[in-house]
Amino acid sequence: MIQERLHQLREAMKQADIDCYIIPTSDFHNSEYVSEFFCVRKYFSGFTGSAGTLVVWADEAALFTDGRYFIQAAAQLSGSGITLMKMGEPGVPKLKEYVEQNLKAGQNIGFDGRVVTAGDGVEYAKIAEKKGGHVICDLDLAEQIWTDRPALPSTKVYLLEEGYSGERTSDKLQRLREKMAREEADVHILTTLDDIAWLFNLRANDVECCPVLLAYAVITKEEACLFANASGFGEQELAALRENNITLKPYDSFYSYVASYCGDYAGAKIMLNEKRINYRLKTEIGEQAILLDRPNPTTRMKAVKNSVEQENLRKVHLMDAVAVTKFMYWLKTNVGRIPMTEISVDQKLEQLRREHASFIEPSFHTISGYGANGAIVHYSATPESCAKVEAKGMLMVDSGGHYYEGTTDITRTFILGDITDRMKQDYTLVARAMLRLMNTRFLYGCTGANLDLAAREVFWEKGLDYKHGTGHGVGYLLNVHEGPNSFRYKISDMTEDWVFEEGMITTDEPGIYIEGSHGVRIENELLCRKGEANQYGQFMYFENLTYVPIDLDGIDPSAMEPKELDAINRFHQDVYEKLAPYFDGDELEWLKQVTRKI
Amino acid sequence: MIQERLHQLREAMKQADIDCYIIPTSDFHNSEYVSEFFCVRKYFSGFTGSAGTLVVWADEAALFTDGRYFIQAAAQLSGSGITLMKMGEPGVPKLKEYVEQNLKAGQNIGFDGRVVTAGDGVEYAKIAEKKGGHVICDLDLAEQIWTDRPALPSTKVYLLEEGYSGERTSDKLQRLREKMAREEADVHILTTLDDIAWLFNLRANDVECCPVLLAYAVITKEEACLFANASGFGEQELAALRENNITLKPYDSFYSYVASYCGDYAGAKIMLNEKRINYRLKTEIGEQAILLDRPNPTTRMKAVKNSVEQENLRKVHLMDAVAVTKFMYWLKTNVGRIPMTEISVDQKLEQLRREHASFIEPSFHTISGYGANGAIVHYSATPESCAKVEAKGMLMVDSGGHYYEGTTDITRTFILGDITDRMKQDYTLVARAMLRLMNTRFLYGCTGANLDLAAREVFWEKGLDYKHGTGHGVGYLLNVHEGPNSFRYKISDMTEDWVFEEGMITTDEPGIYIEGSHGVRIENELLCRKGEANQYGQFMYFENLTYVPIDLDGIDPSAMEPKELDAINRFHQDVYEKLAPYFDGDELEWLKQVTRKI
Repeated sequence: MIQERLHQLREAMKQADIDCYIIPTSDFHNSEYVSEFFCVRKYFSGFTGSAGTLVVWADEAALFTDGRYFIQAAAQLSGSGITLMKMGEPGVPKLKEYVEQNLKAGQNIGFDGRVVTAGDGVEYAKIAEKKGGHVICDLDLAEQIWTDRPALPSTKVYLLEEGYSGERTSDKLQRLREKMAREEADVHILTTLDDIAWLFNLRANDVECCPVLLAYAVITKEEACLFANASGFGEQELAALRENNITLKPYDSFYSYVASYCGDYAGAKIMLNEKRINYRLKTEIGEQAILLDRPNPTTRMKAVKNSVEQENLRKVHLMDAVAVTKFMYWLKTNVGRIPMTEISVDQKLEQLRREHASFIEPSFHTISGYGANGAIVHYSATPESCAKVEAKGMLMVDSGGHYYEGTTDITRTFILGDITDRMKQDYTLVARAMLRLMNTRFLYGCTGANLDLAAREVFWEKGLDYKHGTGHGVGYLLNVHEGPNSFRYKISDMTEDWVFEEGMITTDEPGIYIEGSHGVRIENELLCRKGEANQYGQFMYFENLTYVPIDLDGIDPSAMEPKELDAINRFHQDVYEKLAPYFDGDELEWLKQVTRKI
Repeated sequence: MIQERLHQLREAMKQADIDCYIIPTSDFHNSEYVSEFFCVRKYFSGFTGSAGTLVVWADEAALFTDGRYFIQAAAQLSGSGITLMKMGEPGVPKLKEYVEQNLKAGQNIGFDGRVVTAGDGVEYAKIAEKKGGHVICDLDLAEQIWTDRPALPSTKVYLLEEGYSGERTSDKLQRLREKMAREEADVHILTTLDDIAWLFNLRANDVECCPVLLAYAVITKEEACLFANASGFGEQELAALRENNITLKPYDSFYSYVASYCGDYAGAKIMLNEKRINYRLKTEIGEQAILLDRPNPTTRMKAVKNSVEQENLRKVHLMDAVAVTKFMYWLKTNVGRIPMTEISVDQKLEQLRREHASFIEPSFHTISGYGANGAIVHYSATPESCAKVEAKGMLMVDSGGHYYEGTTDITRTFILGDITDRMKQDYTLVARAMLRLMNTRFLYGCTGANLDLAAREVFWEKGLDYKHGTGHGVGYLLNVHEGPNSFRYKISDMTEDWVFEEGMITTDEPGIYIEGSHGVRIENELLCRKGEANQYGQFMYFENLTYVPIDLDGIDPSAMEPKELDAINRFHQDVYEKLAPYFDGDELEWLKQVTRKI
């Protein structure tokens, strides 16, 4: 089947004069998750992993993917004639090196420029140019071949009322235009879906786990055009657009609109974030306009939660904590008595979250990892592979919910029976790191690169580490991973990492992963707040939002410093005070016990 | 006298068609210290402070300086007709705003382009252009007026033998040319004196406290030209230049050489650090060349001390520690018995350093601050103002030496009698911060922005801070302040702040400054070393170089965490073991006592 599809693709390539066709895994908006419409790489290769790039030539094809997927890809590519390129392995060229090595003189590179970033597209164009060929980027060859392709998603669009968003679209547009004026921009082009959803106070369900609509936006001093499928909009939403002077245009008219705008207004100053746009947009803008390459102002604006959002988030985190803590009670009192799997416990947790009326959907695919599976950072249980959960060892559950009052993200690792001393030491270390960062105070001006050490130093002093950031920003009923704020120490990652502002929300989630044995991660969300201002400047601190007990069965108090013991006791006292009104009887007794002073 | 000088300057300005003449405080190389030849601002204003810019118009003049000098400048400008502009005070315009506000249509701005950075020069040119005037930057108007001006310094140049430098000039040049090849540069222009001294293994005494020679350098793939005054070179030094294919050219032929090179080789790719060159050089290069704006490769190369330099530095730090510890003994046993002042104790310390044969000179002006003077970060005692040192309170001494085996920088605060509880708490806090950073372990990839927190967090948790970086890089018989490595948390400062490499040396010097009362600073130097490499990466640690006791009379052990107590005890045990061979009798007994376990 795959060979037949590739054969058709090669015919289409011949027709279009394309010698090398590149199919990455992305949508038109550089989103973290993509819908079925965009699974072109899966269609032509049979490989179902979440990351990979297929490169097709007249007589061969190669799939590039990373270490998470080597085994799965090898199995799924078997018999397809596609070579698996194991990224990062010795002797395996990088994707672009491979393309350059194999492209012959005069040959052309093709791809759908809408699913390739501007940066990558520029590099492919350079490679083609070196060989005397060129890039063809305005064709989606899957269109003619993939006859039963799912439609582009176009779910119901809904308004986020001011009681949830805390700021009217007209005010957001005004703030954006003030920023445009300061940058002397004539027009601002926005293609990232979370920025657009935030700016227009609109939500939908076009991308799994991220309540956005597929859309582009073009904002000038007077006009705002939203390019989206009108069929998703109800009367109320259309009225809101009119009220705010926003013109709704067809989703697929965006590129021609930009091209014609740039033709009409040669020399216009266009503000956009070159790192986030696709190559097709870059080619449509061409050379006539002056590009002001800036982070999208909305990225910083939406990262700073306003007082309405903050108040909603406090409430919804409490509701979420009630659900997760009841899950903890259920899990710890029933494990070993009733059958459980990694997937069934996740279902139980989702059911408890759904009891809250404003729950919409999970904010990402739960990572439910039991025993050695907890050591796989990006683990995702499948019905075939998922482990039984038994009354021993540890279960790590990283999950979250989208609610009208905001988005949550929490990890707890639960002790289900006997654990080894090593596990207890690891568990204690992770808890110490999480609490230390949570209790950090700092002067205004710090970024996540300054503060990452607060969590990581207790790891580093033991020669340990975790190979991921300590935390990421979280959207409000938007992406669960949202910049620019984060906790990470590598400066190279920090280009868009900005100073912590009051109102920013960041996760605090150190972890330890012992291959083949166990994993521990503990994650709270932290709201950045202003503290004392004195002669030294404005001090800042983090308000904890996550009130779920840290499993004391995993804690060795003798391995904690006095101030860390004080921190966990204060935290548990807060947990008890916040949660007690929602618990009674045996559950309340249990809550008192699991939040006891140690 | 000042008025007469200004009158002559205004005559010269008229002649040169200059309406606004700007005189900053700098030399041709953007050095931290400047010699008498360059004190033009002092000549025309009478103001002797180390920082300030004089702006002269046909009928007025203004001097811009910062808060350290408001009182001194007001006194020294009295009667000169020059207006004092207190930088940073409310209502006082910034220097360039002031120039722009006062420059009339068609007026020209003049300055000696050699003492103005390229960045500043470009901004002045923009201001002039806006007003329809232009910039005149190739004249030094002081030349004609200041008849008894000291000559340009031209001290004896000497070779730093391989036993001190650890690397031959030919090898350094080769490494530099490899870097040039990677950057595809045809030529590299170097104007910073420390880079030039390091690259050519030459030292001299042209700048106070910094053993460099006034020079420029132009390096191509085949040639290396050194522009310096030949009279300072002996036969041995000239032979070394010939051996390494280095052409010595007159210092003042540099600008015409560059102009003629750029004319001959239009389109040449010139690598230089635009932030560090002066405006005159930029204008001589003009538009014909392609500028590759890069940090000077030598800056990073010289920051990483080779094994010979490291071994020399260990030895010389021990000799320096013997001198400072003997000073501590003298100070603490004699204070209150014999007369002492801030200056006389510094003289005693220098005398003890001079006992070591390879001592050359102090590496900077000692900060010797007694009592409330210790709270002034940039304090410099003068014969008129210097305080008596008595048997009470605290004395802070920040000092260092240049030796053939390298440069030292150390601060100790000594307890001379009774101190208040607050002083003891502050002293203990500073010691804790210094020790915490000294004992930090971290993964390769960290910069000073990541690690600054290790010192500062104990301050921040109490709502305290110090308004300076925690530490700076130190040169090898070169500048006592040398980048790119440093400990500081502000990201804006970090453009040239690079990852810590094994062999980099950085000071660790937190402090606290209580105005009108006291100041405490404790400073060690730390050598970055590779530690364990494991699955998480390459761990790094700091080897302490500074073995002088921390005055235990200032320490409150009950305010220290167990691991901090362990750290100070381990440190003092090392101090004792290192220093004991150099002490005997009462001094040895005393040393045992001041390095005791607490």
